[in-house]
Amino acid sequence: MAKSKFEYVRNFELDDTCLRNCYIVVRLDGRNFHKFSEQHNFMKPNDNRALGLMSRSARSVMEELEDITIAYGQSDEFSFVFKRSTTWFKRRASKLMTHVTSQFSSSFVYFWKEYFAEQPLLYPPSFDGRVVLYPSNRNLRDYLSWRQADCHINNLYNTTFWTLVQEGGLTTTQAEERLSGTQAADKNEILFSEFNINYNNESSMHKKGTTLIWEKVNETTTKLIKRPNEGETEVTVTRTRKKVTSHSCDIIGDQFWEEHPDILESDQC
Amino acid sequence: MAKSKFEYVRNFELDDTCLRNCYIVVRLDGRNFHKFSEQHNFMKPNDNRALGLMSRSARSVMEELEDITIAYGQSDEFSFVFKRSTTWFKRRASKLMTHVTSQFSSSFVYFWKEYFAEQPLLYPPSFDGRVVLYPSNRNLRDYLSWRQADCHINNLYNTTFWTLVQEGGLTTTQAEERLSGTQAADKNEILFSEFNINYNNESSMHKKGTTLIWEKVNETTTKLIKRPNEGETEVTVTRTRKKVTSHSCDIIGDQFWEEHPDILESDQC
Amino acid sequence: MAKSKFEYVRNFELDDTCLRNCYIVVRLDGRNFHKFSEQHNFMKPNDNRALGLMSRSARSVMEELEDITIAYGQSDEFSFVFKRSTTWFKRRASKLMTHVTSQFSSSFVYFWKEYFAEQPLLYPPSFDGRVVLYPSNRNLRDYLSWRQADCHINNLYNTTFWTLVQEGGLTTTQAEERLSGTQAADKNEILFSEFNINYNNESSMHKKGTTLIWEKVNETTTKLIKRPNEGETEVTVTRTRKKVTSHSCDIIGDQFWEEHPDILESDQC
Amino acid sequence: MAKSKFEYVRNFELDDTCLRNCYIVVRLDGRNFHKFSEQHNFMKPNDNRALGLMSRSARSVMEELEDITIAYGQSDEFSFVFKRSTTWFKRRASKLMTHVTSQFSSSFVYFWKEYFAEQPLLYPPSFDGRVVLYPSNRNLRDYLSWRQADCHINNLYNTTFWTLVQEGGLTTTQAEERLSGTQAADKNEILFSEFNINYNNESSMHKKGTTLIWEKVNETTTKLIKRPNEGETEVTVTRTRKKVTSHSCDIIGDQFWEEHPDILESDQC
Repeated sequence: MAKSKFEYVRNFELDDTCLRNCYIVVRLDGRNFHKFSEQHNFMKPNDNRALGLMSRSARSVMEELEDITIAYGQSDEFSFVFKRSTTWFKRRASKLMTHVTSQFSSSFVYFWKEYFAEQPLLYPPSFDGRVVLYPSNRNLRDYLSWRQADCHINNLYNTTFWTLVQEGGLTTTQAEERLSGTQAADKNEILFSEFNINYNNESSMHKKGTTLIWEKVNETTTKLIKRPNEGETEVTVTRTRKKVTSHSCDIIGDQFWEEHPDILESDQC
Repeated sequence: MAKSKFEYVRNFELDDTCLRNCYIVVRLDGRNFHKFSEQHNFMKPNDNRALGLMSRSARSVMEELEDITIAYGQSDEFSFVFKRSTTWFKRRASKLMTHVTSQFSSSFVYFWKEYFAEQPLLYPPSFDGRVVLYPSNRNLRDYLSWRQADCHINNLYNTTFWTLVQEGGLTTTQAEERLSGTQAADKNEILFSEFNINYNNESSMHKKGTTLIWEKVNETTTKLIKRPNEGETEVTVTRTRKKVTSHSCDIIGDQFWEEHPDILESDQC
Repeated sequence: MAKSKFEYVRNFELDDTCLRNCYIVVRLDGRNFHKFSEQHNFMKPNDNRALGLMSRSARSVMEELEDITIAYGQSDEFSFVFKRSTTWFKRRASKLMTHVTSQFSSSFVYFWKEYFAEQPLLYPPSFDGRVVLYPSNRNLRDYLSWRQADCHINNLYNTTFWTLVQEGGLTTTQAEERLSGTQAADKNEILFSEFNINYNNESSMHKKGTTLIWEKVNETTTKLIKRPNEGETEVTVTRTRKKVTSHSCDIIGDQFWEEHPDILESDQC
Repeated sequence: MAKSKFEYVRNFELDDTCLRNCYIVVRLDGRNFHKFSEQHNFMKPNDNRALGLMSRSARSVMEELEDITIAYGQSDEFSFVFKRSTTWFKRRASKLMTHVTSQFSSSFVYFWKEYFAEQPLLYPPSFDGRVVLYPSNRNLRDYLSWRQADCHINNLYNTTFWTLVQEGGLTTTQAEERLSGTQAADKNEILFSEFNINYNNESSMHKKGTTLIWEKVNETTTKLIKRPNEGETEVTVTRTRKKVTSHSCDIIGDQFWEEHPDILESDQC
């Protein structure tokens, strides 16, 4: 069986290396999640179990791929940002996007029970992924701002829509018609004047989505140490460890970036 | 919150449409599966539970993406062949490879328990994927032949290696040295003369891997039908349905392809 | 002066290798040739000097790049087909398209005087190029048919248009209006009934464009040979040489391809 | 003749849009210019006619494509930098590189006589081109520094080599051996102690290559103006015009970039 006779087919594989010195963003989107969310009885407008599971899966991705410096998620999507100088998988686009997608997908099923104890998973769900490159810090921040602005717009719509349905007694068709053509201010007004809801007081996670970053965390543990010719002594040990932390804050303005200067690399490189 | 201000970042996404009239192959490989297989106590040289789970996950992919006409797997890898005329996901490489990888990964975890009842899954595993295009039937068949030849070579090696260890009492280092520089004939001879094993009689699935295709299957069901003025009658109903079927046969020679003429599309198109 | 300090910039170059086993077509188009043709007093509807120069430049490209098996030109465009197994420039798209474009452009200026003796070239003209891959013989032939059909459609239009202007005394605006919405049959009819022109008898080069291929040609030369102890003898020497030949025939039907079976490589590879 | 039947072949063309917000560099290299320079009796180590013609052709490219903000050339190569925000040809790589290559190649032949009056051009020369993207100002400057460092290294070598041959009477083989393994300082020493040549005093154009940029230039012209009831008056008119200017200075250090702040766009975009 001549292996060599067939091996020429390897040469049909094409190179897809990502341009150097650009941020590599991998974005995942749930496939057919509208249907998936109905079949699994997601709460409307937001299901905290689902959002928790999304973030848990994203954390699993970050812990596997440490060159991801920030991830941002909302609804059924999550974006992962590899640092611009990363050499993971030799910057091959296909490797980067499939590995992120795979780890996320297997984690989503693996951790399902932790978040949906009472609700069985009916079938294996699927996410699609893509790679986008951003050459400058401004471009990258604008990308993340775009996603967070999208989160806000959708959440304000969904919050108003489902309030009209769940508390206002409208059918979904009626709610849709009611909101057709309305601006943000109109929706805020509906919530406030008709349902006494101040949108600003809604959950940050729902309004701002979830941002995951690496942070140094002090971990204090207590150990019993036995010294020669002494009894046991209790000793407190503090270690600094890098850990994925979760935030539901504004990432459009400058404050977040000033507080976490290590996420971005200089444009001067 | 000006959405439009940020929306320009969409234009950084680049097109990755696959060339028309080429077979699109997506190949998945388990990431760090050597370690994974040890941590989950896989049998050596082949673990039928793992192979069964791989095939089950591959079937899940095919059932989701019907334009996959054939899939071939061995060890911790699986290849999926989209028909050359497919327009799924507008032939976008990133969509095709991430969707296949995602569906496979979530299925692998979802169906784990069906195959590894007694062995808990310790963490979510990961697969990477890639896309390769093949312009002609000859190229595609040579690709599949390449993978099946690879299966044979590895399985003969592994079978001999683990027989030397498990039955011959060699350490893994000794077995490695023993096999260093040997040809196929030498390994067959070791198996036969020292352990009375005829390699030809080994499991086809281990020697040939697993090929999944779509086949028309007659399904016969029995129904009780109640007619007016009659009692219940038992009626046999036969329906023809397309179904994913599994084969462990040679796909290098012509016979398989002659028996399944619908897998390939004409080169004359 | 540290060379190495800067040399990292090499790694920003991305690979653009063309998929194996596909025909590589490079098509050139004249840039702003409408204006160029007016400034250089091209005859309407066809200028044989310009067409001759295009073909001469294309021949210069073929003689430099022998893996081009066929070229087809009409108006201010020319397509060059590299054989599907070519390894010229390691199949790098940028090298292939720029080399063809460069050789064509420099030849166009170099040979200008041979075709436009009395008409000086006013400025250096420019052509743009692109690469398109075709996986099968059918696809490649359909590509060439597409260009030849385009030639026919344009030439029939232009012939009728300029006959209406030059012989019918219409302004260009009137001629445009007259032809608006007409079919091929209508244009043939205008030419025949109003101007007694049978379009079928028009020049093949104008109707069919120019096809260049490599052919074996017998070249007979006469030499005077002086043998010892004899006088001079005249000897006829016939050598077979590969030469670029020009054709203005139909390449849509099968006949041309049957007569020149060496242009295409088998789809079975 | 059904045009539509063939038109599907258009869809085989793949998109090659360049990533936004990156500098687009097109570099040309003379093909087989070693042989070309010998056949056309180029002076060694540098032929000012050839360098002049290269720069003239490059200027022709810049005047056609105004989004090129800087070009740098040495020996038989030239690099053209499109500004990072350019939308010329919709940033399609193939269009950009073939157009630059074509304009350069036709100009090279067109202007030949102006530089090589007495030396006929024997055949049309060819250049190949490529596209490379640079995401930051630092990367772009390092690219240009890389080319200028290369110019210096080659010119010092060539100057010493040809001095040893032309003035020292060595054969080319002997000169090659003499220089094998030498450092820059060694070559400077040979030139100075053996031939009384101070390399620093050599021509800047040879040491630094040629940099072309756009500059505002005041052009003063004198016109005769005839006013009513007066005789003719001579009037001096000064107009500011953008013009391509040529420089043979260091572009590795900061000075050049500080003096011409408009060449680069901000990294903060």
